[in-house]
Amino acid sequence: MKSPVVYLAAAWSLAFFGSAFAADRPPNFVVIFADDLGYGDLGCYGHPTIKTPHLDRMAREGLRFTQFYSAAEVCTPSRAALLTGRLPPRSGMCSRQRRVLFPGSKGGLPAEEITIAELLKTKGYATACIGKWHLGHLPQFLPGKHGFDYYFGIPYSNDMDRVATSPMGRAAFLTPKIEYWNVPLIRNTEVIEQPADQHTVTRRYADEAARFIREHKDQPFFVYLPHTMPHVPLFASGEFAGKSQRGLFGDVVEELDKAVGTVLQTLRDEKLAENTLVVFTSDNGPWLTQGEQGGSAGLLKDGKGSTWEGGMREPAIAWRPGTVPAGVVSSELASTLDLLPTFCAQAGLDAPKDRPLDGYDITPALAGGKSPRNEMFYYRGFDLMAVRMGPWKAHFMTQTGYGQATPERPDPPLLFNLDVDPGEQFDRGSRISDVLDQIRTLAEKHKAGLQPAASQLEL
Amino acid sequence: MKSPVVYLAAAWSLAFFGSAFAADRPPNFVVIFADDLGYGDLGCYGHPTIKTPHLDRMAREGLRFTQFYSAAEVCTPSRAALLTGRLPPRSGMCSRQRRVLFPGSKGGLPAEEITIAELLKTKGYATACIGKWHLGHLPQFLPGKHGFDYYFGIPYSNDMDRVATSPMGRAAFLTPKIEYWNVPLIRNTEVIEQPADQHTVTRRYADEAARFIREHKDQPFFVYLPHTMPHVPLFASGEFAGKSQRGLFGDVVEELDKAVGTVLQTLRDEKLAENTLVVFTSDNGPWLTQGEQGGSAGLLKDGKGSTWEGGMREPAIAWRPGTVPAGVVSSELASTLDLLPTFCAQAGLDAPKDRPLDGYDITPALAGGKSPRNEMFYYRGFDLMAVRMGPWKAHFMTQTGYGQATPERPDPPLLFNLDVDPGEQFDRGSRISDVLDQIRTLAEKHKAGLQPAASQLEL
Repeated sequence: MKSPVVYLAAAWSLAFFGSAFAADRPPNFVVIFADDLGYGDLGCYGHPTIKTPHLDRMAREGLRFTQFYSAAEVCTPSRAALLTGRLPPRSGMCSRQRRVLFPGSKGGLPAEEITIAELLKTKGYATACIGKWHLGHLPQFLPGKHGFDYYFGIPYSNDMDRVATSPMGRAAFLTPKIEYWNVPLIRNTEVIEQPADQHTVTRRYADEAARFIREHKDQPFFVYLPHTMPHVPLFASGEFAGKSQRGLFGDVVEELDKAVGTVLQTLRDEKLAENTLVVFTSDNGPWLTQGEQGGSAGLLKDGKGSTWEGGMREPAIAWRPGTVPAGVVSSELASTLDLLPTFCAQAGLDAPKDRPLDGYDITPALAGGKSPRNEMFYYRGFDLMAVRMGPWKAHFMTQTGYGQATPERPDPPLLFNLDVDPGEQFDRGSRISDVLDQIRTLAEKHKAGLQPAASQLEL
Repeated sequence: MKSPVVYLAAAWSLAFFGSAFAADRPPNFVVIFADDLGYGDLGCYGHPTIKTPHLDRMAREGLRFTQFYSAAEVCTPSRAALLTGRLPPRSGMCSRQRRVLFPGSKGGLPAEEITIAELLKTKGYATACIGKWHLGHLPQFLPGKHGFDYYFGIPYSNDMDRVATSPMGRAAFLTPKIEYWNVPLIRNTEVIEQPADQHTVTRRYADEAARFIREHKDQPFFVYLPHTMPHVPLFASGEFAGKSQRGLFGDVVEELDKAVGTVLQTLRDEKLAENTLVVFTSDNGPWLTQGEQGGSAGLLKDGKGSTWEGGMREPAIAWRPGTVPAGVVSSELASTLDLLPTFCAQAGLDAPKDRPLDGYDITPALAGGKSPRNEMFYYRGFDLMAVRMGPWKAHFMTQTGYGQATPERPDPPLLFNLDVDPGEQFDRGSRISDVLDQIRTLAEKHKAGLQPAASQLEL
């Protein structure tokens, strides 16, 4: 017989998390990850002409974060951190020189790293990665080696594998033609299409996810759905091309929005919505150098590639009807780093204890309450550029996403109160030395606990 | 007996506008006008830390515009244009030198101008102006002379009437103390408090509006509610001061949000919601030179005082449950200039025919459909700085809101596609000459039809 304390705790859990623990099985998890989408690019984040009715509805039915961070300022490290709950230097999935993996790279996510998929598999989850992997395209690094039962997608960025006859430089990005690129589309370990028809990948990813959900609806599942878009070169299907007010970038985001709708509607149709936590976010900020084909960070500064807020603060919506409260706008701090501990906790699993993790179980924040996260470490490669502590962010080094060759090292560090000054316009570093001292102490403690691995990106 | 055609038209109107024409009496109108609120300053427009649950709910229950314009880039001309449906040069309520009225000004809105209030009074409306007037504080210009049965408020900006012992320059704005200012609070024509207790004006305006609504609920009414805040100096009541994450500016906007909630709840409580059209917007963009005490234009460029988008594109929400559809985000063009023709049409009145008007009846846009507006003329004083035609905006002259002493005259004019490039970053002027030619033609035709009046601001 259980003790009264246990009963009390169980009753409290039930009241607090609703169906989360009432169901017969642990919840399903779906992570929908956009590529290079900025903080300002969705209707529900204020964009004037990009229409995102499905994501707006997801926000109305769920919780919209306004201070949610990707774990890195570019693609490969951001993805590695999401799946492992660890900052990129710990796995070596970063580099100041190369920044991401390329088709000629020999490295990838090390086998000893433990992914969300591997953890959930120990609890009987069916797992799928559908979309852009970018954690190593050689056979030993593919999703199947990292806990995913199924993979369908393009293994790296869609601007890689440029054919020799395509224009040099950015011209090929900005007049996107399918014949400029030779990117492969892979099912499990086999190339099934090359070049991939990028016009239809967004829709096909959504359809694959919907099919996987339907086929595995009788067991718990984890679907990691990292879209290829809206990373340049931009491609939309005939249904969306030329249709949005925002031009090609808008077409692509609106098709992505519909793809989100496909997944959510599948969950509703299969009566799985109330037992599935869906999180939508993006890997890093907008690629500002792409002109009208890049996105917008809204009121935030800079974009992809930088550790200014626009590079790492992302649109983020959490959805689970009946558990995640509807229509909440949360300014609590959270990060993709938190997904692994949160999913583990909700699945009744222990997170790995044999290695440092950088995430928190943000279940309370998903219920509309406080987040346990109070800090954020902003890395560029192996360099700790900035640290957030509560509302305060200190920049020890600054560098724009693209176009600034070397970092600046302001002394004293720049200091912004992000709650008051989200646009990082009004430096208070020379005036509030006690806060700076506290952040320096936090940074030193953090560095002392971080043993960087050798870079996988320089292999 | 009416002809079948009339019956058919009536049936169509009923189907299209719902209760708009079904009611026994014309609809009530409430215009809530913020001061210096930027496009990016509300939760439902993406601000990360300003919490605006009442305005967010208003947007969920109504229609949120993303391309809605004030009629001018600063206060006095913007208000004159709203109430008359005419661009500021037509009434002389603008000037390049002084820009707005000051306590020493001798001018005001000319008696021959026809306001919304005067028009609605001919149809039996009770009319109130509650808040900041700024269209002339001398007796012959006060709201009572322009069709308002009742006035309660501060007659000009809250940073005027600075006392001699207050700090010079902006210091007085940024360390706001009630004793620095001697602004009067007026009821009808009498000063009832001087200095006005600015900590409580936001709440008192809302309470006055609620009282007026309750007292006049048995007749049609028009309440024009131009708030004093969030114009500097910023003051919040004890309930809000120090409470928001965004600092004093956030405190003030959150109190303004609650004041909106007070009005909407009064309408619900009195069973008037379905017969009252409420429009919330602001007079011009954020006053960026006020640092953390100024607002944010989000992804738009520049702010108050400029004819870049951030100076004149505003948050705008329309609400009338059962008539204005719920949860719509509209990127149709609209302006405060359109309120007069729209209210006239909905009240069954003819708009003035003896003078040029610059507005349109936007009832179709308020029903979630297309707007008849396809252009926008951006004035600074008497200068036509820029013209929008469809998605295209040509800048013939540019000048920042503050800090740039003289305008630039780019040749060719700068040309932006605002649907694609709302941030006005990517000039296409040298490449798309046919569009520029069409806008030039539109501008010339417009100028030929605009006879500027002598400036009231230079008297």
